[in-house]
Amino acid sequence: MKRKACAEVGIKSFDVDLLEQVSEAELISKVHELNANPDVHGILVQLPLPKHVNEEKVLGEISIEKDVDGFHPLNIGKLAMKGREPLFQLCTAKGCLELLTRSGISIKRKKVVVVGRSNMVGLPVSLLLLKADVTVTVVHSRTPDPETLVREADIVIAAAGQAMMIKGSWTKPGPAVIDVGTNAVDDPSKKSGYRLVGDVDFQEACKVAGWITTVPGGVGPMTVAMLLKNTLDIWCKACDRALRPYLQTKYPAPSDLSCMALPQNIVLRVWQCHCPCNPNACILFLLENLKHTDAFHLLSNTAGF
Amino acid sequence: MKRKACAEVGIKSFDVDLLEQVSEAELISKVHELNANPDVHGILVQLPLPKHVNEEKVLGEISIEKDVDGFHPLNIGKLAMKGREPLFQLCTAKGCLELLTRSGISIKRKKVVVVGRSNMVGLPVSLLLLKADVTVTVVHSRTPDPETLVREADIVIAAAGQAMMIKGSWTKPGPAVIDVGTNAVDDPSKKSGYRLVGDVDFQEACKVAGWITTVPGGVGPMTVAMLLKNTLDIWCKACDRALRPYLQTKYPAPSDLSCMALPQNIVLRVWQCHCPCNPNACILFLLENLKHTDAFHLLSNTAGF
Repeated sequence: MKRKACAEVGIKSFDVDLLEQVSEAELISKVHELNANPDVHGILVQLPLPKHVNEEKVLGEISIEKDVDGFHPLNIGKLAMKGREPLFQLCTAKGCLELLTRSGISIKRKKVVVVGRSNMVGLPVSLLLLKADVTVTVVHSRTPDPETLVREADIVIAAAGQAMMIKGSWTKPGPAVIDVGTNAVDDPSKKSGYRLVGDVDFQEACKVAGWITTVPGGVGPMTVAMLLKNTLDIWCKACDRALRPYLQTKYPAPSDLSCMALPQNIVLRVWQCHCPCNPNACILFLLENLKHTDAFHLLSNTAGF
Repeated sequence: MKRKACAEVGIKSFDVDLLEQVSEAELISKVHELNANPDVHGILVQLPLPKHVNEEKVLGEISIEKDVDGFHPLNIGKLAMKGREPLFQLCTAKGCLELLTRSGISIKRKKVVVVGRSNMVGLPVSLLLLKADVTVTVVHSRTPDPETLVREADIVIAAAGQAMMIKGSWTKPGPAVIDVGTNAVDDPSKKSGYRLVGDVDFQEACKVAGWITTVPGGVGPMTVAMLLKNTLDIWCKACDRALRPYLQTKYPAPSDLSCMALPQNIVLRVWQCHCPCNPNACILFLLENLKHTDAFHLLSNTAGF
């Protein structure tokens, strides 16, 4: 999906395929090579890595300025702290908030329950929400009574990695339910022998929820869109650095031109439609699209890379 | 209190007093000087800084290996992330957990409400608790109904910086209440004209709580003790680095001697006594003491610093 989305919006992407037996040193040297390549603006190491490779070490070697996933601990620290701004917000976490915002669901003064505390989703989404003045409770595998806590929530973000764990009876009527889970369950009726389901029992929950995302769909494409946006942001910064001396030669007065305005050219469309099992519930769909505007072309023609 | 505690346990401490008009550059150059001084193992910049100085920039200049306060974003990131270990845990946050552990109050499967989300206390204590399998809710100034959430808690950690905000009626019977607040309120009966109170209305809450800390006392001395422990930990690591080559010359076989065992020599005593207004409530007091054991002396005599 990432590859296709990149092609659609005009971001060149390429894969570096390595054998499973690759040594840690070889993998790190590949990361260093990409760090040093000025044509590469974003690096994403597809997880999980083989067991003999130290994941923390490899991720730590990605230049923080190209870490589009935003997994660097320095980035997480800045995400957590009041008054600090991370270089990148983690794609899925950012995507959850974007889905809410674009669906007109206000998070102000809301009680949000995040189910799961993974480095990839649960933790960063809680930190982002806390910074956005939300009252957050994090429910996890060691929480004695998750159901009671979920029932109090105005917004539920399910990121536990447990197929259909959250039943319809777990929520009060009307909350927004964002389902981050993607779990394969056996399904002999499918050619592949399985189908993908979320952490929420959709058939049950859509009868109770006010808003609910689908799996597949919903959070998945939004995460990819956020990855593209992070990549575009880095590219813009690189453009800015490359353009500045050129502009200063041509127009010695300080110029206001900054390509930081470019991300507005990303159009993320959230489609809403009614749920067949509950006419009051809306389902959030998403289509991402990055428009190649004139401004975009102007910059890419002017900058020498 | 910090100065006195250092003297008591045998840690040399000195102050670098600068005028309020000090420039940012001058302050940073002082930090660099201390970073480079091998006799200095821990640096603490006393906050708040004057308004013309960028606090984030100054704190970011402290060598992460001497940042005994643990405020560096990289440290906070590692504190937050599963599978990562921070160089230091933030003193007050670590102190809250230590108070609970040393008082025999299990945090397992408990509901904890943290009131406040400051970089210094609320945020790091929530992150530490989450990592320790606790179900955490963070209540803050924008939470619509803090009282209801506090009433559900088995453990309340009050770090809002609001004098006596948490009333006795806010808690259910029996929780452990850790009061991190230190607020000055007018008191004409005192020579100074004020007295220090916590974020909890102690007189009311001690009739309901199972355990409660006092202000002053409780968290304050424990925070200082944790600062000493962080400093000792750094010193131990420096000893370890200094001793290793010496030991390898004397005893070519790999030696098991590691001064990482030293922190056990810190004795933190938690005294418990009954509260006069509620015989069922215990008050947590604390006295810190770092024993100069033989091992400690052996190392300081052997290492050449």
